[in-house]
Amino acid sequence: MSAQVGIIMGSDSDWPVMKEAAEILDELGVEYEKEIISAHRTPERMMDYAKNAHSRGIKVIVAGAGGAAHLPGMTASITPLPVIGVPVKSSNSIDGWDSVLSILQMPGGVPVATVALDGAKNAGILAAQIIGSGDHSVLTKIEAYKKSLKEKVLDKAEKFNK
Amino acid sequence: MSAQVGIIMGSDSDWPVMKEAAEILDELGVEYEKEIISAHRTPERMMDYAKNAHSRGIKVIVAGAGGAAHLPGMTASITPLPVIGVPVKSSNSIDGWDSVLSILQMPGGVPVATVALDGAKNAGILAAQIIGSGDHSVLTKIEAYKKSLKEKVLDKAEKFNK
Amino acid sequence: MSAQVGIIMGSDSDWPVMKEAAEILDELGVEYEKEIISAHRTPERMMDYAKNAHSRGIKVIVAGAGGAAHLPGMTASITPLPVIGVPVKSSNSIDGWDSVLSILQMPGGVPVATVALDGAKNAGILAAQIIGSGDHSVLTKIEAYKKSLKEKVLDKAEKFNK
Amino acid sequence: MSAQVGIIMGSDSDWPVMKEAAEILDELGVEYEKEIISAHRTPERMMDYAKNAHSRGIKVIVAGAGGAAHLPGMTASITPLPVIGVPVKSSNSIDGWDSVLSILQMPGGVPVATVALDGAKNAGILAAQIIGSGDHSVLTKIEAYKKSLKEKVLDKAEKFNK
Amino acid sequence: MSAQVGIIMGSDSDWPVMKEAAEILDELGVEYEKEIISAHRTPERMMDYAKNAHSRGIKVIVAGAGGAAHLPGMTASITPLPVIGVPVKSSNSIDGWDSVLSILQMPGGVPVATVALDGAKNAGILAAQIIGSGDHSVLTKIEAYKKSLKEKVLDKAEKFNK
Amino acid sequence: MSAQVGIIMGSDSDWPVMKEAAEILDELGVEYEKEIISAHRTPERMMDYAKNAHSRGIKVIVAGAGGAAHLPGMTASITPLPVIGVPVKSSNSIDGWDSVLSILQMPGGVPVATVALDGAKNAGILAAQIIGSGDHSVLTKIEAYKKSLKEKVLDKAEKFNK
Amino acid sequence: MSAQVGIIMGSDSDWPVMKEAAEILDELGVEYEKEIISAHRTPERMMDYAKNAHSRGIKVIVAGAGGAAHLPGMTASITPLPVIGVPVKSSNSIDGWDSVLSILQMPGGVPVATVALDGAKNAGILAAQIIGSGDHSVLTKIEAYKKSLKEKVLDKAEKFNK
Amino acid sequence: MSAQVGIIMGSDSDWPVMKEAAEILDELGVEYEKEIISAHRTPERMMDYAKNAHSRGIKVIVAGAGGAAHLPGMTASITPLPVIGVPVKSSNSIDGWDSVLSILQMPGGVPVATVALDGAKNAGILAAQIIGSGDHSVLTKIEAYKKSLKEKVLDKAEKFNK
Repeated sequence: MSAQVGIIMGSDSDWPVMKEAAEILDELGVEYEKEIISAHRTPERMMDYAKNAHSRGIKVIVAGAGGAAHLPGMTASITPLPVIGVPVKSSNSIDGWDSVLSILQMPGGVPVATVALDGAKNAGILAAQIIGSGDHSVLTKIEAYKKSLKEKVLDKAEKFNK
Repeated sequence: MSAQVGIIMGSDSDWPVMKEAAEILDELGVEYEKEIISAHRTPERMMDYAKNAHSRGIKVIVAGAGGAAHLPGMTASITPLPVIGVPVKSSNSIDGWDSVLSILQMPGGVPVATVALDGAKNAGILAAQIIGSGDHSVLTKIEAYKKSLKEKVLDKAEKFNK
Repeated sequence: MSAQVGIIMGSDSDWPVMKEAAEILDELGVEYEKEIISAHRTPERMMDYAKNAHSRGIKVIVAGAGGAAHLPGMTASITPLPVIGVPVKSSNSIDGWDSVLSILQMPGGVPVATVALDGAKNAGILAAQIIGSGDHSVLTKIEAYKKSLKEKVLDKAEKFNK
Repeated sequence: MSAQVGIIMGSDSDWPVMKEAAEILDELGVEYEKEIISAHRTPERMMDYAKNAHSRGIKVIVAGAGGAAHLPGMTASITPLPVIGVPVKSSNSIDGWDSVLSILQMPGGVPVATVALDGAKNAGILAAQIIGSGDHSVLTKIEAYKKSLKEKVLDKAEKFNK
Repeated sequence: MSAQVGIIMGSDSDWPVMKEAAEILDELGVEYEKEIISAHRTPERMMDYAKNAHSRGIKVIVAGAGGAAHLPGMTASITPLPVIGVPVKSSNSIDGWDSVLSILQMPGGVPVATVALDGAKNAGILAAQIIGSGDHSVLTKIEAYKKSLKEKVLDKAEKFNK
Repeated sequence: MSAQVGIIMGSDSDWPVMKEAAEILDELGVEYEKEIISAHRTPERMMDYAKNAHSRGIKVIVAGAGGAAHLPGMTASITPLPVIGVPVKSSNSIDGWDSVLSILQMPGGVPVATVALDGAKNAGILAAQIIGSGDHSVLTKIEAYKKSLKEKVLDKAEKFNK
Repeated sequence: MSAQVGIIMGSDSDWPVMKEAAEILDELGVEYEKEIISAHRTPERMMDYAKNAHSRGIKVIVAGAGGAAHLPGMTASITPLPVIGVPVKSSNSIDGWDSVLSILQMPGGVPVATVALDGAKNAGILAAQIIGSGDHSVLTKIEAYKKSLKEKVLDKAEKFNK
Repeated sequence: MSAQVGIIMGSDSDWPVMKEAAEILDELGVEYEKEIISAHRTPERMMDYAKNAHSRGIKVIVAGAGGAAHLPGMTASITPLPVIGVPVKSSNSIDGWDSVLSILQMPGGVPVATVALDGAKNAGILAAQIIGSGDHSVLTKIEAYKKSLKEKVLDKAEKFNK
């Protein structure tokens, strides 16, 4: 089966954050691809990726970027697919506000589904939920995942008062 | 055909913002329902809605809330469906930061797809994109919508230099 | 004597902050219980806890949470008891603003008594003050505690200029 | 019956905000007194009020202030009673951040129960909850109040889809 | 003489702000062109503009945008020309922070010369200064302009104490 | 000669910051005293200090505090002397904003001369400048100090390009 | 008697804010002069004013400015006199943060005594307090002024409960 | 050939940040000079530098400063040349906001081309672009530099999926 989720990021230095999206998709059994695509250093590559993702079978794009983070929004401007933006806290970030606001505050007509600062894991889950909206088997795995979260808390809770 | 998108909000005072989600879903031909559900005043009603939405055929939930905005995140904690959060700028809001941060900064495991402050229109488009990931006809309408956005700009651009 | 204060938190990782509430309650001779309850991972458990706390004899709930911190506000939405919220600075927090605002900015009708960022000690004192408003012996202990704070400062002040 | 709650504020210009605390206490049947007490213009008056409130039968103090808002914290430094702080958005406020932070961020040992910006109504409810922790009849009224909030939402919810 | 400065903006609604760049360029005798180009609605048009500006004789690009403002940075990613960014305060802006940060915080390698919020007049002056770095006659006009600013202040200063 | 400047702070933990005020006053030959005075733990001591400082010969008070920093403003409410406030970045500070805003944003009638975050050195210089406004010999020392600052820069500047 | 306080501001548009400094100095019987001096438009004039103020008999300078507010800090860099900075909220200000931070955060060695946003009245009082540190008659007037503030509050307080 | 770009900074402690401007100018073959010039400690030196830069053949000034950063704006107030400001995050900076805002928010008439926090590399590139607007050979080097950025990303991208 070919990739349904495309995970893209501006630099391999974003990978330590972004790999959490990949790991949870592995866990949920959703196929993905991952690419280094920089909005500011390889704009044509970004345009090409965004234009062709849909026809290649990609159903959701997860884009991570830091600072003046344009990759998620620009990708969303080109593709009809849902785009999930992960604000990455870069080294000279102003406390993450720059990444968050430049991904979140998109103008009317071009949404980006923004998750928490460095929240790549949640971006992966959200991507799976989107796939799951048209694929019952994925939604079932998400239900199982949510149950496992609950059980871990209940387990910790029990040990906590021993 | 029954509703595929559930638009929920804490108060009818949020409707002037949230109706933009409904309007764009009308334009894109996606069925939706709308409900007043307050996380803080009707928590059981929220629990019930979130628990049953999936089995009733809802595929995406759009939740709008202001201030300490808990409706999107709490709904996401219960349902396996993707939840889109709209930060509404309430009357005593601290510049919208409260709504934005209390929706965006969800912990690992429970994502909310957050859009811009008062960005209900984009929440509607994103909901349609999610439906579209499993329904080709909706994605085609989104492509047409994006084309119309472009044409409006080109039209304005032409008039601008006359 | 059974617990009068319920200390709850979303994860055992919050305990290093939250235990300061427990320690000061120990010092002030107020009985408490402590539980791991996650708003986002165990919403039903949270509902149950909040619904039953009053009838079990709890008089005040102290709830700590970080990021999009919904535990204090959601607990307050269910119980008639006073709820004290402790904003915990989580690992990907945006400088603590997220925790603070998502606890503080509750809508009219559903208060949360918010204390400083990571201010669990003050939450414990406040819980004792609330118990003390109906129990003279506790208030007397608070007066003694405040006197001890003063004496420590006076002691330091004296040593400072030696 | 004498006043159980003391509502204090730095200026009569704070009354349009602070009167919401009085109104909800009226509704909940809790006796209160109200006073103009300025931390910065009448510090001795503040000291006297804070010192004597407890012996006069006051059980909770609600203090509202704006800008560099010192009234709640200074009152809390003197009285053993629980103090609720209402950050008021003053005319030259920096978006309310000044009022919020100078009330919320109290040092260990001297808590102030802070509510939302201009959240005097919630301060009143919280005061009643504190009284209610030692007075069953007040807690019963709070339960009724919470039920009325719920019913208003359900009523609006029903009308919303007609 | 053909245009040396290209003034671009995402929407004609930005024109009331951006026209101040045009007016000062008129005053300083620098030729300019103005275009509506939306990064998010007409990305190809933006790519084309940025790619061809240099060969068409443009020497500086002034780009204004609001919210998640990507036009200045994306233009800078494509053209070798200096790009001046004007953060426009849009209607749902979070106090202008979004526009400022998404223009200012560009990654290493792709600068945008950012001016103050709504500071299009300064963008125009800066564009003229850049032209002036290679054209003595423009720099002379800037010197005259600076002198006129000084004289206006001196004139006001004199009247002020009469 | 007796102390002309009173340096006060809430805790000896503030001394590593506040001692810079003392050191520069030593350098400028201005007599000072230093005291631990906590607004929140020893309010009466603060009242006494502020009431008597003037009659004891103190001419300026330098007050340092962190978090919800009330010491400078409360001291200023009592004494007719000029009060300089030093916002100290405390351990749970929200990036220093709390200290800065709760010292700076004083209401009309009760000024506090606020310096930069952790800016105790500047508080000392300012205190000396105030003394110097009525004492020519101190002002002469400040002129010499400013000259020494300049010379240090010129010296570094010379070495920089060697 | 010649002016002891120099009130300077970048533009006559700052006068509606800055005149409050003048009015309170009138009330406290302190002589002042007022001048329009722009750091950015008339830098030499600023240098001259700052260099000569001391020898002309000025004892304190009150400088008001907005946005990137350099007038107070630059004046302080030149004169040995104490400089009080008034952050003025300009028309395109980012909520006043720009004015506040560019006045407050001076480097070690060059203090500016900063007052609240638009706090010119307090700047005037502070200037009088500084004069008063070497002039008993002015300090007596400040004591009377503080007493009048107190009486106004007591008067309002009395009426408030009638 | 003599220097075309002047790199100035308030202290040699800014050099670890500012040297990135020098390094990229070396790489792009643009001559520069570097100087320690403090706005607050050596204001006359700053005035002299700014007055004479143009006649000495300098075409662009790059000025770095932290905290209440006045060097870029004051330099811009004197010279007709374009000035690029680099906000440096100083040791007691409030998260860099002070440096950014006191450089960015210049009043109408006196622009500073502001780059990202600690963004000296981009300041160097921007300086080269400005030189390049009148010097074809420099612009050609910038085009080559941009191409090299792209190739590095493509190279990383290729390795990333091996």
